[in-house]
Amino acid sequence: MRGRSAVAIVLSLVFVVPLTAAISQAYEPLSAIAPIPADNSLTPEKVELGKMLFFDPRLSSSDWISCATCHNPVFAFGDRIPRALGHKMSEGHRNTPTVLNAAFLDVQFWDGRAATLEEQALGPIQADVEMNASLDEVVAKLKAIPAYVKRFEGVFGGNDPLTPEHIAKAIAAFERTLITPNSPFDRYLRGDKQAINAAAQKGASLFDEKGCTNCHTGAVFSDSDFHTIKVPGSTDLGRYNVTKAESDKHAFRTPTLRNVALTQPYMNNGSVNTLNESVKIMAKEALEEELSAEEVEAIVAFLESLTGVMPEMTYPILP
Amino acid sequence: MRGRSAVAIVLSLVFVVPLTAAISQAYEPLSAIAPIPADNSLTPEKVELGKMLFFDPRLSSSDWISCATCHNPVFAFGDRIPRALGHKMSEGHRNTPTVLNAAFLDVQFWDGRAATLEEQALGPIQADVEMNASLDEVVAKLKAIPAYVKRFEGVFGGNDPLTPEHIAKAIAAFERTLITPNSPFDRYLRGDKQAINAAAQKGASLFDEKGCTNCHTGAVFSDSDFHTIKVPGSTDLGRYNVTKAESDKHAFRTPTLRNVALTQPYMNNGSVNTLNESVKIMAKEALEEELSAEEVEAIVAFLESLTGVMPEMTYPILP
Repeated sequence: MRGRSAVAIVLSLVFVVPLTAAISQAYEPLSAIAPIPADNSLTPEKVELGKMLFFDPRLSSSDWISCATCHNPVFAFGDRIPRALGHKMSEGHRNTPTVLNAAFLDVQFWDGRAATLEEQALGPIQADVEMNASLDEVVAKLKAIPAYVKRFEGVFGGNDPLTPEHIAKAIAAFERTLITPNSPFDRYLRGDKQAINAAAQKGASLFDEKGCTNCHTGAVFSDSDFHTIKVPGSTDLGRYNVTKAESDKHAFRTPTLRNVALTQPYMNNGSVNTLNESVKIMAKEALEEELSAEEVEAIVAFLESLTGVMPEMTYPILP
Repeated sequence: MRGRSAVAIVLSLVFVVPLTAAISQAYEPLSAIAPIPADNSLTPEKVELGKMLFFDPRLSSSDWISCATCHNPVFAFGDRIPRALGHKMSEGHRNTPTVLNAAFLDVQFWDGRAATLEEQALGPIQADVEMNASLDEVVAKLKAIPAYVKRFEGVFGGNDPLTPEHIAKAIAAFERTLITPNSPFDRYLRGDKQAINAAAQKGASLFDEKGCTNCHTGAVFSDSDFHTIKVPGSTDLGRYNVTKAESDKHAFRTPTLRNVALTQPYMNNGSVNTLNESVKIMAKEALEEELSAEEVEAIVAFLESLTGVMPEMTYPILP
């Protein structure tokens, strides 16, 4: 420990003092509260209903796969496998993005084909390689469960409120509570200089200097925009499938880097297992930078400091 | 409410006073603490490790199916489908038994092929229609995760403690905490006469008088023994597959009735959807009794009063 302290002091003389101002200009801490759209107020009852739906396997045709199967709370609301598995364990083309802090993104899905969490929520339910259900089928199943009917009535009111639109709204409301504030880096930004070590501070500085923040910007480290970056093994047309614009071929939405130390493997196709390797690849492909081993390690230390406080999640008991 | 109260008073005059003594003789409340074997002490650290393993999909060959996939906390640690689904969504032959209160049973699985929770735990991991993994493969995967290695060392000590035996012990220890005491019927047995209504009290009495308690006996309503009872659609040889004794053909272990109102569908093959229908079938096939509609309703009211307090379950965050 003594050796470590001495190194830390030396490093802090070299790096920390001059870096702090630059770091605090380049970054912003994550809010504990997500933006809430005017047409989907956040009430505790709606969040609870959304949580029930999120964990309910009856939203799939098999009654066996729920949103939480792939957006698994045990793995920071991801699945830790390269590409998503779904109905009959068929494999999709893309890595499951975490739901954590997705409420701060301006577009959803790797290819941005949904603008909102509400729009996103109904996608995987219907995708044949995911939950493989029709919305009619899901609505009919839920309507056969009196406790759900009652909850939809309580939350949304009106006549016959158990609709796909309200299913989506409830799930989105729940997802807006899946925020991970107070990571070590957030605490550092708020003034706790001990919250991250010298390597992570150096990494934060390098991350900005090298240009990573061109795309990985804002409190969730994503510009919610699309970029074409060559990643190992990917032939996926990405954003092009949505826009049919030539310039969008192989373009993908910048992923959030919040909790990135928990959401391996990486890239749109989950082809890269480690943060270390990911940092090297992105530096080379996106920024034409060959980072030194020390630089990579510092940036990884910084990225590891973005792991926030996971929402404490008790299981709903489903009717 | 007034009408109801009047009925309750009349019923209580007719039934409750004379029944109470008989009921309290026939039944016993569920303990909040399960029996703990001498060779697997229950420590908080072991329970936490077992919980992590129980929820970890890496115990399957696909990295996608955990114990909790079928023993799903949202469905009282069952899956609410007729027969278990597993690897590649292939369907097994039997309905998933709840893990809740399994610690009180003297044999595990529908056919009793495991004597203990420890022995049971390794079965589904290796079954090709369930988690489809080899124990060597699982041990190798877990050993590659330093946080697991550290936890096994902390919990079990010794040299190289990350073994199948210790995986089983940790999971079994966690399962011994999955107890649901304080159901309305337990509270009734302990003296709270308002805890269940007159119909449920009548049902409790009928359940004993008709002979259901011959097999559904003890605090978990199971004799942990095997019985041949014809259920719709089942051709399964059951216990015979374990013993090869002719008398065991189509015999199955008496299932617990604790939380039975949450663990539909019913029977070894999940062929019956409602408690009402199940009660009728069992009375006819096991006891040669044709129950009246009123009797069935009373017994169902009693069975519904066996829903206990679910263990509050927060998700583990896996390394």
